[in-house]
Amino acid sequence: MPHITLTEGVPGIVGPMLFRPETAKPLNELAEVLLRGPNSLSRGERELIATYVSSQNDCFFCQTIHGAVAAHHLEGDEALVFETKRNPERAPISAKLKALLAIAGKVQKGGKYVTSEDIEAARQQGATDIEIHDTVLIAAAFCMYNRYVDGLATWAPKDPDLYRQQAARLAQEGYAGSTEGIPAVAASQAI
Amino acid sequence: MPHITLTEGVPGIVGPMLFRPETAKPLNELAEVLLRGPNSLSRGERELIATYVSSQNDCFFCQTIHGAVAAHHLEGDEALVFETKRNPERAPISAKLKALLAIAGKVQKGGKYVTSEDIEAARQQGATDIEIHDTVLIAAAFCMYNRYVDGLATWAPKDPDLYRQQAARLAQEGYAGSTEGIPAVAASQAI
Repeated sequence: MPHITLTEGVPGIVGPMLFRPETAKPLNELAEVLLRGPNSLSRGERELIATYVSSQNDCFFCQTIHGAVAAHHLEGDEALVFETKRNPERAPISAKLKALLAIAGKVQKGGKYVTSEDIEAARQQGATDIEIHDTVLIAAAFCMYNRYVDGLATWAPKDPDLYRQQAARLAQEGYAGSTEGIPAVAASQAI
Repeated sequence: MPHITLTEGVPGIVGPMLFRPETAKPLNELAEVLLRGPNSLSRGERELIATYVSSQNDCFFCQTIHGAVAAHHLEGDEALVFETKRNPERAPISAKLKALLAIAGKVQKGGKYVTSEDIEAARQQGATDIEIHDTVLIAAAFCMYNRYVDGLATWAPKDPDLYRQQAARLAQEGYAGSTEGIPAVAASQAI
């Protein structure tokens, strides 16, 4: 049961976002820019970084919904998402993304864990300043979203199909305003 | 030296915010709502929560600037800020704020560390749902800001007077747009 009174049947972060629309707005805008804005990293790659960090933080809702969005962008390849969470070094992804995921993993532990060697390894695979910046901020942001979702003990459904359906909607419509239009009474239909 | 090329002499989070204004906007808006928006927790109390979490994350820049803003709101009482960072249980603050800081400390470790007993203890001191929500989100958000600042190895000045001056400006003008108007060439004057 959530630690505060949220609309029943509303999954994960949607509950506290409906409870506090003033903070939902910048939270959704940040996700929109980071995960969907113009970028040399694909949407699938950025969702993989978000999914990996959420997995390291053991946040079921975030790793499941963003894993589903990642798979949606990556031709439905759920095995790739699973393998990236389990062992990014061995996953069938680019060497650049592996180096960025190594940085993201350090950020998850704490900002000071990131070393010049981690950055140099990413640069050697072609990572740019903005790709490194965005990787650090995606990882940092999911350390926030994960703590928000679990720190309030929000509810999350188990059925993977519900996440696939919601992922298709998020991939189509994006995060900005994704919870704004949902009246609390209809919010249980959100996922 | 920062891990990516940032304007020289620009302190802490200001550097990456000037580098990436698209993400600076929601990051500043979130801080504005959480730390300065209408709330039954005072601005000083909310800045103390931000400072405590930043201290637990060992982020020098964030704990120093937000500690200075907290002191500014709390009649200049820097000793109170110091004591709250060092030992919130013994600090001369309200029992409600102590209970909220205990929740914030759990969130800093990870969302799942927050227990029903932590929440109940805060309620017994009069904490409302929105105060508990905002405490969790402030703590979660500073786990992001701290990782952003340290994960990019940003530079921070040491002189406490520079933080006092910048704190007075932030207390007056707020966070929304606090970096928007700064041209990169003049940014070294920001603190």
